[in-house]
Amino acid sequence: MLDFENEAFMEQIEELVERKRWPQLRDILIQMAPADIAQILDELPEDRLPLLYRLLPKELAAEVFVEMEPDLQELLIKTFSDTELKEVLDELYVDDTVDIVEEMPASVVKRILQHADPETRKSVNEILKYPEDSAGSIMTTEFVDLKKDMTVADAIKRIRRTGTDKETINICYVTDPSRHLLGIVSIRTLLLSDEDDVIGDIMDTNVIYVNTLEDKEVVAQNFSRYDFLAIPVVDTEERLVGIVTFDDAIDVMEDEATEDIEKMAAITPSEKPYLRTSAFSTYKARIPWLLLLMISATFTGIIITTFEDALSAYVVLTSFIPMLMDTGGNCGSQASVTVIRGLSLNEIEFSDMLQVIWKEIRVAVLCGVTLAAANFIKMMLVDRLLMGNTGLTVPVAGVICLTLVFTVFCAKVVGCTLPMLAKKVGFDPAVMASPFITTIVDAISLMIYFQFATWILGI
Amino acid sequence: MLDFENEAFMEQIEELVERKRWPQLRDILIQMAPADIAQILDELPEDRLPLLYRLLPKELAAEVFVEMEPDLQELLIKTFSDTELKEVLDELYVDDTVDIVEEMPASVVKRILQHADPETRKSVNEILKYPEDSAGSIMTTEFVDLKKDMTVADAIKRIRRTGTDKETINICYVTDPSRHLLGIVSIRTLLLSDEDDVIGDIMDTNVIYVNTLEDKEVVAQNFSRYDFLAIPVVDTEERLVGIVTFDDAIDVMEDEATEDIEKMAAITPSEKPYLRTSAFSTYKARIPWLLLLMISATFTGIIITTFEDALSAYVVLTSFIPMLMDTGGNCGSQASVTVIRGLSLNEIEFSDMLQVIWKEIRVAVLCGVTLAAANFIKMMLVDRLLMGNTGLTVPVAGVICLTLVFTVFCAKVVGCTLPMLAKKVGFDPAVMASPFITTIVDAISLMIYFQFATWILGI
Repeated sequence: MLDFENEAFMEQIEELVERKRWPQLRDILIQMAPADIAQILDELPEDRLPLLYRLLPKELAAEVFVEMEPDLQELLIKTFSDTELKEVLDELYVDDTVDIVEEMPASVVKRILQHADPETRKSVNEILKYPEDSAGSIMTTEFVDLKKDMTVADAIKRIRRTGTDKETINICYVTDPSRHLLGIVSIRTLLLSDEDDVIGDIMDTNVIYVNTLEDKEVVAQNFSRYDFLAIPVVDTEERLVGIVTFDDAIDVMEDEATEDIEKMAAITPSEKPYLRTSAFSTYKARIPWLLLLMISATFTGIIITTFEDALSAYVVLTSFIPMLMDTGGNCGSQASVTVIRGLSLNEIEFSDMLQVIWKEIRVAVLCGVTLAAANFIKMMLVDRLLMGNTGLTVPVAGVICLTLVFTVFCAKVVGCTLPMLAKKVGFDPAVMASPFITTIVDAISLMIYFQFATWILGI
Repeated sequence: MLDFENEAFMEQIEELVERKRWPQLRDILIQMAPADIAQILDELPEDRLPLLYRLLPKELAAEVFVEMEPDLQELLIKTFSDTELKEVLDELYVDDTVDIVEEMPASVVKRILQHADPETRKSVNEILKYPEDSAGSIMTTEFVDLKKDMTVADAIKRIRRTGTDKETINICYVTDPSRHLLGIVSIRTLLLSDEDDVIGDIMDTNVIYVNTLEDKEVVAQNFSRYDFLAIPVVDTEERLVGIVTFDDAIDVMEDEATEDIEKMAAITPSEKPYLRTSAFSTYKARIPWLLLLMISATFTGIIITTFEDALSAYVVLTSFIPMLMDTGGNCGSQASVTVIRGLSLNEIEFSDMLQVIWKEIRVAVLCGVTLAAANFIKMMLVDRLLMGNTGLTVPVAGVICLTLVFTVFCAKVVGCTLPMLAKKVGFDPAVMASPFITTIVDAISLMIYFQFATWILGI
């Protein structure tokens, strides 16, 4: 397998390119997987790309093309003759063509559609009509369809005749004359059945399918739940219009996890890999949240200003503000992130809310008491005895420890509740992660802190 | 498709159970997917489980069994007669049996292994020997193996004869007499070839495979990179010992994303779904990190104590500490989380470090200046004019804004560097997420803050 950390290998390739050893290069490349070739081409100087690409045999070339980054695809298409473009397009599956078309500027799209064969053009245009992030937008229209009165021998004959153009032949779809989905039959069932068996008798009629407008995230969840190779997509009249294959579902799963993680860190999700995004785009994805959160932190400032006198009387109180705020924030994000992930894997539903809160309350009590005890011992032994911080009297330590217990409690409850409420009212729960929870918990912890200080220290 | 949010459906099921309408229940259940049936059984009273489970036809029953939670599997096994246990085990694929065995207490494992057929027992014991999280531990030993001098007709005959017991027939593996992997051939290639073609001529010899000891996360990455249906697993002598199928890879991908997210929120990852973990286990997964981070926050306390005098002279400075710390923390986690995700998707490598830092520096300057400008305007208009906070003079505002710029800068650089360094020295980068970065950035931002205060305000 290709080791991408292996710089010696890339150096060897670069040397071959420099010394124009094309046949040798070709022999190395054709032994590799399309994704790996695409990565190598990506790392070589752009002006060499068209030449290197043309070393590849036709079918492999198309597979490599699909794996390349959009900017390099565009560059290549611009150097293609009309015949070359047509050759690549003929080898592509419809859903891959759609992916490419979606990334290209209008002029290139026009040229692609001109050179695609009429049927592909029609399919591409149809798929492009579906909303972004819908099942329709990621499906392919090339699947094997069978009729229920065919025999297994007929079916295998049909697969042999039409199979080359289909993205998968592992699952075949049985439809009636008006294209309604009647059942599915796997190639395995076909091969393990008798040649005279009738498709209608051996097909599986309990088919799980999705609608063209279904969110692609839901489509991907079906794959991990049911171990599907492909899932059929039907239109509003329940006619079969396409299928989504597992490789596209894996991509969606990966993208959705990335999106969740980005939202949890208060970043507007981007479709592009990090190193291919400009600094300005990254800035745009991050700054709105930073501004919003910065302005929200005004509340904590106001709370502190209100208790200015208390703070100047007991300066020692100020030095524990960061610890209290951070601990509250950490407790809150532990709870919120756990619940967000549970929601997005469908392990937790809104109806579990009371159960979740009850659990977090118990965890919070355990955590709060442990942290307070550890902190009390640390303050008495380290801060007071070792470092001679005489301001840290037992009542002050008491205020800090009580604040810890109550802050942890509030943080956990707020942390687990907000994502579920967000989901209920139709927001993305992932937004209710660390940064937002932290901002809210900061304010809460300061209010608890000063309240205890007022009661216990009488300020 | 089953709508799990649909409580009416579950109520109907519960009523049928209560009224003991077994035939009706059976008719509903057998139309559903195994994962859905398992979920329904999970939600019904436990004492009904053995009875309900026995309603299912043998093959479906085994499929449902695989999808159930370990505690219910254990409960069922204990009610099984020896014959029933044997029937279920005979229907299971080896890798599913291993998964079950791994979760059961010793007494149940012993009983399972006693009733599995000798070959399965041997395979299970072999797979159990591989380290947790290795390719070997998630593979199945049931695959279709072909010889290179077979014809396509021979191969199809062999698949028909042995295929029922194999987890997949979609990819077949060509081995030599000493079990070395020579190539792979898909069922599609077989079907689209002539009956007289020889396997050795049509097989694909550029096979990507993994070693039994490879990390399962790397195995899963291969699936998303190469769109595999299955990947062959070889031992140290390069002999084919098993395959990992895409459904197991999808599970690994999901688990790894969850693990990353949990680590990012300073939680020790757990294998169990949230609602099935006891409050005490959740506490144990969270408290070590909370304690560690709480103790680390001592530094921020020390810094504040050092500048006690400055703070009592300018009490207004205290009220901006939370905002500065939060903004620094948010900037740092944006950078770290982006880099952590990039590392785990292999989009970023250690060799990209300088490029990443350079990018974050530019983003940091843009963000820092924007935040400082927005904050300056807000302080002058809202805090000073509107709320009459006269302590907020222009020099004080200057200190705050300059601190913002430098804090954002440090936060972004620290945030993007630490995960990469962690990976380089063999730690999990995900640990270098928000909580740790926040703790470090807190200290940095306070030092910057007081330094500027000393210089500009002369305290």
